[in-house]
Amino acid sequence: MILLRQELGDVLRTARQAQGRTLRQVSADARVSLGYLSEIERGQKEASSELLASVTEALGLPLSFVLREVADRIAVAEGVSIPDTVPDSLTEGELAGLH
Amino acid sequence: MILLRQELGDVLRTARQAQGRTLRQVSADARVSLGYLSEIERGQKEASSELLASVTEALGLPLSFVLREVADRIAVAEGVSIPDTVPDSLTEGELAGLH
Repeated sequence: MILLRQELGDVLRTARQAQGRTLRQVSADARVSLGYLSEIERGQKEASSELLASVTEALGLPLSFVLREVADRIAVAEGVSIPDTVPDSLTEGELAGLH
Repeated sequence: MILLRQELGDVLRTARQAQGRTLRQVSADARVSLGYLSEIERGQKEASSELLASVTEALGLPLSFVLREVADRIAVAEGVSIPDTVPDSLTEGELAGLH
């Protein structure tokens, strides 16, 4: 089973490390505890929506960017092809299911 | 503040209704309680990663599709432009922050 919290944790950690910042720095900027952020990054805890908003803001990344990166990683894990062009929104037909 | 659970709830409800299915049907297929699924759809509770996997499977939609739709909606709310082409993965530079 592909778990959102594991992919999300990987993306948040990768982004933080790409910025050369420590857990301590980002947790302080996001006003969340270092231990909680560490557990989020390791995929051990679910991030609340409020925490996720704070952490992405502290990283200077729009939440939509982080979620799109997570979606792309999960698509690879699911073996779902990534289209070259992405519509603004899924159509009713797409939302109506693939099966 | 843009909250993931609210956008996620909207996407899950839209997908279920597009399939003409009731809360009762999807909650039974996903093996989650009707009340819990209802709260998720209304953005009142955080979905655990396991519940999200079960519900997307019950809807016949890859988790990556649902998350991409959520990301697109949040991008609109954030005023972040949606590129015509999406790379397989964000570059190190992009993950290093926009600010």
